[in-house]
Amino acid sequence: MNMAKTFEQYLKENRDQHLKELANLLSIPSISALSEHKEDTQAAANWLADALKNIGMENVEIFPTKGHPVVYADWLKAEGKPTVLIYGHYDVQPVDPIELWESPPFEPSIRDGKIYARGSSDDKGQTFMHIKALEALLQTTSTLPLNFKFCIEGEEEIGSPNLEAFVEEKKDLLAADVIVISDTTMIDQGKPTICYGVRGLCGIQIDVKGASSDLHSGLYGGGVQNSIHALVEIVNSFHNESGEITVEGFYDQVIPLKDEEREAFIKLGIDEEKVRQELGVNHLYGEQGYTYFERITVRPTLEVNGIYGGFQGEGLKTVIPSEAHAKITCRLVPDQDPEEIVELLKRHIEKNIPKGVEVNISVFDKGAPYVTPIDHPVIKAAARAYEAVYNVPVSYTRMGGSLPIISNLDQTLKAPIVLMGFGLPTENFHAPNEHFHLENFDKGLLTLCHYWYELEKL
Amino acid sequence: MNMAKTFEQYLKENRDQHLKELANLLSIPSISALSEHKEDTQAAANWLADALKNIGMENVEIFPTKGHPVVYADWLKAEGKPTVLIYGHYDVQPVDPIELWESPPFEPSIRDGKIYARGSSDDKGQTFMHIKALEALLQTTSTLPLNFKFCIEGEEEIGSPNLEAFVEEKKDLLAADVIVISDTTMIDQGKPTICYGVRGLCGIQIDVKGASSDLHSGLYGGGVQNSIHALVEIVNSFHNESGEITVEGFYDQVIPLKDEEREAFIKLGIDEEKVRQELGVNHLYGEQGYTYFERITVRPTLEVNGIYGGFQGEGLKTVIPSEAHAKITCRLVPDQDPEEIVELLKRHIEKNIPKGVEVNISVFDKGAPYVTPIDHPVIKAAARAYEAVYNVPVSYTRMGGSLPIISNLDQTLKAPIVLMGFGLPTENFHAPNEHFHLENFDKGLLTLCHYWYELEKL
Repeated sequence: MNMAKTFEQYLKENRDQHLKELANLLSIPSISALSEHKEDTQAAANWLADALKNIGMENVEIFPTKGHPVVYADWLKAEGKPTVLIYGHYDVQPVDPIELWESPPFEPSIRDGKIYARGSSDDKGQTFMHIKALEALLQTTSTLPLNFKFCIEGEEEIGSPNLEAFVEEKKDLLAADVIVISDTTMIDQGKPTICYGVRGLCGIQIDVKGASSDLHSGLYGGGVQNSIHALVEIVNSFHNESGEITVEGFYDQVIPLKDEEREAFIKLGIDEEKVRQELGVNHLYGEQGYTYFERITVRPTLEVNGIYGGFQGEGLKTVIPSEAHAKITCRLVPDQDPEEIVELLKRHIEKNIPKGVEVNISVFDKGAPYVTPIDHPVIKAAARAYEAVYNVPVSYTRMGGSLPIISNLDQTLKAPIVLMGFGLPTENFHAPNEHFHLENFDKGLLTLCHYWYELEKL
Repeated sequence: MNMAKTFEQYLKENRDQHLKELANLLSIPSISALSEHKEDTQAAANWLADALKNIGMENVEIFPTKGHPVVYADWLKAEGKPTVLIYGHYDVQPVDPIELWESPPFEPSIRDGKIYARGSSDDKGQTFMHIKALEALLQTTSTLPLNFKFCIEGEEEIGSPNLEAFVEEKKDLLAADVIVISDTTMIDQGKPTICYGVRGLCGIQIDVKGASSDLHSGLYGGGVQNSIHALVEIVNSFHNESGEITVEGFYDQVIPLKDEEREAFIKLGIDEEKVRQELGVNHLYGEQGYTYFERITVRPTLEVNGIYGGFQGEGLKTVIPSEAHAKITCRLVPDQDPEEIVELLKRHIEKNIPKGVEVNISVFDKGAPYVTPIDHPVIKAAARAYEAVYNVPVSYTRMGGSLPIISNLDQTLKAPIVLMGFGLPTENFHAPNEHFHLENFDKGLLTLCHYWYELEKL
């Protein structure tokens, strides 16, 4: 492939300049969660808009939202060719505890082939790569094999509160044939990975109320329902002894795994004994009939994230608490519908309310699960691009977490989504000493260039 | 009964003086829990020692302890007669929230036939009555029908941490044929009540530990045991659907109720529907086969007093908590042994530890249950004394709470204990606007005088 040499050469020759520019972007403390950094998030948006203009992108615009702005740009001169929408985010997590950073979070520093800075891996570094890959193609071929659009938001780390409305409003502007996001991780160093699905999420809070005030267990103990006992009875009813969720209808819409998928997961070579030791538990535990990896990625879950009621201080207080509370989230897989699952949970709880208490259920944010079929042509093309650069078979994975943006983009734009992440799970995103391996910076740039040509061929 | 007229007359004539003295005692802010009131607790002890000397008690002594002192006095000139030990306490609860008091807690105020002040009912008022009853007898007959000893401590409201050692050390000094305590309540206005038993107590904390740190439910959800799920499974195993405690052997030592007791409880006329409404619950709930009153007084219980683990803030946090905790107390009845019950609880928990977690159990303070048989002569004599003054049949009750001193006194001094309380359940002990009905101050004084003569006749 002749062309590859050309962009390879360009990227090699300009590597120092590119890293200098990346360091520049990484020095902007664009922490979306902290209002004192509002000007910094705007500065990061401006920086990206300029960078996009500089490489030759057109219609560059910074769209304000109720929160931090969205940077848009496009290049639509590949007539008759598909359009790619590249999503990324320029906002970063807070840096506390700052004293644990070995170099200041906004003074990028390259050590041992890694660039250390907040946002280096999540997600400024990976977003920057998309810009530089297109620059390499434009500089070496004066054109692009496909049409491209960028949508780079500034609120991913705070749950993308304004993205849904933005995407809905701009759905014609953002329309694309495939959506590419580089904001996930490879499963391990040297193991390029395509994440082809994420779990969805729904959450509820259960509030149990017994007597109208806390009661003395000497005076009332044995005579009234204890709100904690009632809550515990409800919570304990969610799972059976095999670790399955007993909520009626919970699994009805779950699409069974394909043999191809289960085989791909076995190839990941997850060492359950190593995981067990790292987590410091005597047994891994979960739904029977599935591997650890399957349980954390492609099986739905119901987890109590918090429980509280009564006395929590030192020693004892002989109180029968009036109230007890539990916070619960479910991770969902295709085709479970978060709204429907919430209804099933409510029905289950209402059937299981113990005598002597009242129960209130609040519903929290929901996100749909998403999967791009493992054998979809855009996934297969990505695999070929990775394999051309990394020279190893690509790994296929699904993510146990939920990306708030995925279901937004999926449900509004209705295009397949390809998650090509170049981060590593050890790179401390959301923690002190976040870093990004330059090996994957270099190889990732090449992979992206290859991918656009692979997509062109489809 | 001629003699009765004499002490009745004396108490009537000296009522104003006695109330003045009581007000004096109640103005001393002897809050045992607060170190800034250390001098006040000493002042209250001094006040009582003087009062005991003034009525003619002998060997008056203020014994220091590691905490607040114990006041002792005796009068042992009734040769060949039984000895009564009167226990009381001069310390009081804190007064917060102070703004809810209609008159200052340490400026006693008489309104509507009640004296308002912290300690008026619990227990300075009732302890003071014992002194004045003996004064009345000494002043009108120059002697006493029995031998008397006083033991008035200053740490009841903080759990009597030094009483056990004191009683053990002074067990010869305190030796008696019957112990009388006035620190409980009548069941209702105009219904004199003998409390002939209290429940015991034992308490444990269960600490469940799963993975070595909190985990993200997206990355690990479904793969490991959730410490809350494990704790809930343990806690839910303590009761069956009939509200019975399923811990093996838990009920083995429980002495079945006598028919006489169950009949006495029915005579109390507890209106369960009224209780239900007051507590604001849709159903009263508890162990099947027992009335509400029996459940809260003479049946053992296991209550979770507190539970906590994971996220408790607003909204959601998708965490799988590393730790979860529950605080549990059991109320015990004769002849359950707190030590043995703790062992049974431990065994039960250890049998029910779910896979994938470790469990630690801590043990808290314990107190034995106590009962003086309902047909014991000292109980029957107390009933006759009450009935002579109140002119209604006495009510027999047992208390659901645990008095820390009871098992100490019982196990060391081995004398029957008679709880003759003159407080009312509505008198706000431990709360703002504590008060004491003067009707029961007057009738209680007479009842005590009668009681000593009834005991003399045995």
